[in-house]
Amino acid sequence: MTTTATLVNHQIRLASRPVGLPTRANWNVTSEPVGTLEDGGVLVKTLALSLDPAMRGWMNEGKSYIPPVGIDEVMRAGGVGVVVASKNPSFAVGDHVNAGLGVQEYCLISSAQIKRSGLIKIDLNVGSLTQWLNVLGMPGMTGYFGLMDVGQPVAGETVVVSGAAGAVGQTVGQMAKIKGCRVVGIAGGEAKCDWVVNELGFDACIDYKAAAPEGVTRWDAVREGLKQHCPKGVDVYFDNVGGDILDTVLARINLRARIIICGAISQYNNTTAVKGPANYLSLLVNRARMEGIVVFDYADRYHLAVAEMAGYLKDGRMKSKEDVVVGLNTFPETLLKLFNGENFGKLVLQVAES
Amino acid sequence: MTTTATLVNHQIRLASRPVGLPTRANWNVTSEPVGTLEDGGVLVKTLALSLDPAMRGWMNEGKSYIPPVGIDEVMRAGGVGVVVASKNPSFAVGDHVNAGLGVQEYCLISSAQIKRSGLIKIDLNVGSLTQWLNVLGMPGMTGYFGLMDVGQPVAGETVVVSGAAGAVGQTVGQMAKIKGCRVVGIAGGEAKCDWVVNELGFDACIDYKAAAPEGVTRWDAVREGLKQHCPKGVDVYFDNVGGDILDTVLARINLRARIIICGAISQYNNTTAVKGPANYLSLLVNRARMEGIVVFDYADRYHLAVAEMAGYLKDGRMKSKEDVVVGLNTFPETLLKLFNGENFGKLVLQVAES
Repeated sequence: MTTTATLVNHQIRLASRPVGLPTRANWNVTSEPVGTLEDGGVLVKTLALSLDPAMRGWMNEGKSYIPPVGIDEVMRAGGVGVVVASKNPSFAVGDHVNAGLGVQEYCLISSAQIKRSGLIKIDLNVGSLTQWLNVLGMPGMTGYFGLMDVGQPVAGETVVVSGAAGAVGQTVGQMAKIKGCRVVGIAGGEAKCDWVVNELGFDACIDYKAAAPEGVTRWDAVREGLKQHCPKGVDVYFDNVGGDILDTVLARINLRARIIICGAISQYNNTTAVKGPANYLSLLVNRARMEGIVVFDYADRYHLAVAEMAGYLKDGRMKSKEDVVVGLNTFPETLLKLFNGENFGKLVLQVAES
Repeated sequence: MTTTATLVNHQIRLASRPVGLPTRANWNVTSEPVGTLEDGGVLVKTLALSLDPAMRGWMNEGKSYIPPVGIDEVMRAGGVGVVVASKNPSFAVGDHVNAGLGVQEYCLISSAQIKRSGLIKIDLNVGSLTQWLNVLGMPGMTGYFGLMDVGQPVAGETVVVSGAAGAVGQTVGQMAKIKGCRVVGIAGGEAKCDWVVNELGFDACIDYKAAAPEGVTRWDAVREGLKQHCPKGVDVYFDNVGGDILDTVLARINLRARIIICGAISQYNNTTAVKGPANYLSLLVNRARMEGIVVFDYADRYHLAVAEMAGYLKDGRMKSKEDVVVGLNTFPETLLKLFNGENFGKLVLQVAES
């Protein structure tokens, strides 16, 4: 049995609340002994962490769907790891698990914390470690239930998704294709757009960063792209970005369209007020609906979505792409890739090889 | 039989599209002979017209839920009138009717136009002429179906309605009380607030025009009012106004709240862009839903809502208030009462006594 008490655990803690983009000054790197494993507890060695846009919200003070990360607390993060010590009969050394591990090398989970941490065993025959952070993890669950439960797409309808090459976006688009919809992505950069069309099978993808023709704004160009690629209008819009893209899509929605509000990455680092969707009256004209989704509400059905999408991964109808960065200490800079759009696929921080 | 061909019909026509608030220059007063009544047609003498915030939208160019009123066309308006000549066996001289009459003294409805005009007989034993433009007319139907079908209030929930003393607001608030909800109105001015509380039985009403305490903005004061009067948060918000009030309420909504977007009178005369709801991410945090309503979608169920609410009017559980202004020619100025909040109750333009 490993002596856990003397193992050193490196951690990233929130030092201060950022204004705008987080900087290294907002983080502290700390180290401390792992501590003692008590009866019923499990010690997990972190292998890889999920880096998500939602993290930015957790760094802010104030009421949200979960409490903010406290100052000096280890930064909250979901991750996959391996059990290296266990005093719990349900978990054996060597088991691979998924849980809220935090941005740290080891996570000591007491008996009382197991449920809250969401600790579950994962089967690497079903999906790879990083797929368990992507399509089989929180982003995949978010995309699946946001699209299927809130969006309720019908075969033949047109589904638009922003952040199309991101973790949630790739799930949404591929699921919508499988369900028989026309799927149009919005993403930043030619490489991402090409990938979702050529590899994932989207019908089209609009590059919102493309140089607009002379005399035309970037958003006019996106509007033209929507007109061209959604000739029958937009029935379902899955919004990961907010801001001008949300407004532009609102101008193209159909009667009884469904807009899933999953995030607003364009607004998370604002130092000024959030930009509300000026075209929201399109909801009135079109008797359309805009609805928020928080993935935790669907926890009792995750296993169903995992089973369905694992099948698609196996038979090749779904693909996944992860952008893996190595090194716990790179966390402060790696996180920023989400906000400048540098990540290509689900952003994963690899903490240990095995 | 009246000789209709020589009767003179005074009309108000749209002369030009307004920028901001409409002025008299945007209207033409015209007169022309009524014309010839053909087989299957009906001639209606206008008694009273419904003046509604939606009229401002109909004056704009561009796609909406119905086409705009064309330049030089008689301004669109719903109204009640009396049949003064008929070559249609379903309508007799002396029948009272409700239809899209337009802002004019007479409306000649050909056989082909009857369906599109929405011509129906009304029973003055069920409600008064002006009630047929209010709680038993379009505003009442809008309030009823917006609240019941989109809002789906449950007894014990808190319902907030803006424009509380207006035609739609009074229906929404009274229906929500009848369904067992706590009801809080938002209105401009002490008289309106007192009336919805003392006469209509709302639990509270927030005066958004009240002088705010020193050092506090008007919207801070509304926010405090919501906190005080909605101690359990807001489950259903029926929005007639948009703008800052929508944003303020969004900050107080509960999990799975429903927001009915019925109008945005604060934005209709903007000469700058519409102000989108900056707090729309509250939809995400609260898994809440914002949905538009257009009353025409419920036309096949109007008779059910009329029957239900006529019962409440009879037994005193519902009251109605109309603000009646006399004279077709006052239309350009009377319409403005809606936008400066001067109307107290459903705004009605009386065109003829009988």
